[in-house]
Amino acid sequence: MKIIVFGGDGFCGWPTALHLSNVGHDVHIIDNLSRRKIDVDLSTSSLTPIESMPNRLKIWKKVSGKTITFEQIDIAEDFFSLLEAIKKFKPSAVVHFAEQRSAPYSMKSARTKNYTVNNNVNATHNLLNAIVESKLDVHVVHLGTMGVYGYGWAGSSPIPEGYVTVSIDTKEGPLKKEILHPANPGSVYHMTKTLDQLIFGFYAKNNELRITDLHQGIVWGTQTDQTKRHDGLINRFDYDGDYGTVLNRFLMQSAVGHPLTVYGTGGQTRAFIHIQDTARCIEIAINNPPKKGDRPAIFNQVTESRRLIDLAKLISKMTKTKIDYLDNPRVEAVENDLVVENKQFLSLGLMPTTLSEGLMEEVRDITEKYANRVDKATIIPSSKWRN
Amino acid sequence: MKIIVFGGDGFCGWPTALHLSNVGHDVHIIDNLSRRKIDVDLSTSSLTPIESMPNRLKIWKKVSGKTITFEQIDIAEDFFSLLEAIKKFKPSAVVHFAEQRSAPYSMKSARTKNYTVNNNVNATHNLLNAIVESKLDVHVVHLGTMGVYGYGWAGSSPIPEGYVTVSIDTKEGPLKKEILHPANPGSVYHMTKTLDQLIFGFYAKNNELRITDLHQGIVWGTQTDQTKRHDGLINRFDYDGDYGTVLNRFLMQSAVGHPLTVYGTGGQTRAFIHIQDTARCIEIAINNPPKKGDRPAIFNQVTESRRLIDLAKLISKMTKTKIDYLDNPRVEAVENDLVVENKQFLSLGLMPTTLSEGLMEEVRDITEKYANRVDKATIIPSSKWRN
Repeated sequence: MKIIVFGGDGFCGWPTALHLSNVGHDVHIIDNLSRRKIDVDLSTSSLTPIESMPNRLKIWKKVSGKTITFEQIDIAEDFFSLLEAIKKFKPSAVVHFAEQRSAPYSMKSARTKNYTVNNNVNATHNLLNAIVESKLDVHVVHLGTMGVYGYGWAGSSPIPEGYVTVSIDTKEGPLKKEILHPANPGSVYHMTKTLDQLIFGFYAKNNELRITDLHQGIVWGTQTDQTKRHDGLINRFDYDGDYGTVLNRFLMQSAVGHPLTVYGTGGQTRAFIHIQDTARCIEIAINNPPKKGDRPAIFNQVTESRRLIDLAKLISKMTKTKIDYLDNPRVEAVENDLVVENKQFLSLGLMPTTLSEGLMEEVRDITEKYANRVDKATIIPSSKWRN
Repeated sequence: MKIIVFGGDGFCGWPTALHLSNVGHDVHIIDNLSRRKIDVDLSTSSLTPIESMPNRLKIWKKVSGKTITFEQIDIAEDFFSLLEAIKKFKPSAVVHFAEQRSAPYSMKSARTKNYTVNNNVNATHNLLNAIVESKLDVHVVHLGTMGVYGYGWAGSSPIPEGYVTVSIDTKEGPLKKEILHPANPGSVYHMTKTLDQLIFGFYAKNNELRITDLHQGIVWGTQTDQTKRHDGLINRFDYDGDYGTVLNRFLMQSAVGHPLTVYGTGGQTRAFIHIQDTARCIEIAINNPPKKGDRPAIFNQVTESRRLIDLAKLISKMTKTKIDYLDNPRVEAVENDLVVENKQFLSLGLMPTTLSEGLMEEVRDITEKYANRVDKATIIPSSKWRN
């Protein structure tokens, strides 16, 4: 199948592009390389030494015999080039990772708030608009976030997959309706993903676009079966206070002898998924598109939920690293429960890669190997949700 | 009170600015004059000959003795100037009309879709972001639309004001929740107003901004008590297929002997409000801000609902003009009922100006007076919702 991966240079995009290429799809990457440029702005860099995109693709060709093509387009800014690329490549499916994906970065300053809204909303809308203009039947698979739901909507009941059945009182008596789960985003970044949902709903209704939205938990791990095949295919690994995801940050901190940085009590419960499963889930979603005229399909892309303090204690025990409790920079509940439904991916064949000491050791090995590249000054969070 | 009216040059913004100035507020208008520029792009113009903004303000000073100031800023594009203006003027309230407001224009082409999303989302987000940065306590009054709701959510029950109580089944039994009314926008324009709602919800929660969102029906009429005071204060009147609102279009059509253009069967029911009441509602909203930390206040800004075919027949009878049934360019239900709650404004003292032959005659007098300015080529709709 011909597939464009928008944002195919990023932490989730790169291993997904390799995975899709490996299983035989014809993959074209479109990326504006913004993630690398934000590293420059923040004076940070991937812990792992990542190759340039042309080198990555040359190496992939060498080790796999397969070709992935690449175009540098800013799809939020350049609608015309985006449309031309779609008309020329004629994809059957596109994967949309092309959004600013850090909550702390989105809350860093007035400028990063504006950038996140402008980039993410225009990237999503331009993409759907271009598909309509192209007159092609293209299935859109988008990476959303569990953060659209907020937490604790319905007591201890699991968070459903996108839609929720409610009952309303009407003149004619109680009426059952299935509605999009109410949005309760916790940052400007998460807010943009709730805006995406409404944009998807409109284009599915008005233009019968086929859209799948994947509400992903926090990704951990760095390598996949494909990125392991050559040092030059290595995936990026973010450990700084803005882009590092919590479990990866803990593992890196233990590797360099930095205390594990827990925000607040650590009583926050979050949903997780391993980077290998991200790629597999995208593949499953591509293979199971909604029908033309259907509402957007929504899957929760998570494999397990953990309390952050429990993760910190696990790693602390494993590695004899102490825990530091920092003031929580976020505006959020001190503690929360979180049970998440993920039946759809399981029923479609996902075999979850869950947290295990073995896998965590593998991540720790990577972080130890590149520990000399760590800039400790970037470990502590610098964004605040409210001044 | 010091009030900034964003979009104060437009059809609703101008009479509102005059009304607020007339009741004694210190009014500053910020506008990018985009509505006049879109007229240039579309080769259309206001039926009424409107003065330039500097002339409007000079004339207002002369007839009322009151000063309204003006700055030309594109708040969607120029965050820095917006922030400086807020810091300098130090408003207690702002009225936010600064959005592209035509549904047909928003569906005209790929370019107008992108423009509408980019302009409306960035204008709203920049405004909230700038208020946070200014550290001032500014009440935001925003003009939304009834179109966020879609139609027929709950049988023949009235559409509630923004929030709806639903019951959900949880592990612990049924649970009642008050949620934002599910969004069901009918065009890219309406979609942007549903995005606004989520942006408001986030900033009310995270930064405790005080926000009132007004879901307005279709505006009709052109003059208010203030715009009548001098020919040079006259409000704009749009009659073209893109910017003309339905009742005003019918009245203009009858004045120039053009058949009344009904889309589809005319069985669509819509909610209406007179332009004079728009200005009064904004004043009431400004006088009744939500408390800091409250969710956004939402009022339905409508005074009555009518079936379009009934309006056409009324005007046809009044003026002996025939009715033409055109193919409906929109993707929408052929017929719909619509009952809308508007208790909040009534309880706060709004005395509705409802449809009456007398008032319609006044609008028709205006259209007859300026009938020589009509370009009949622009009457027929040229935007289609789906190709």
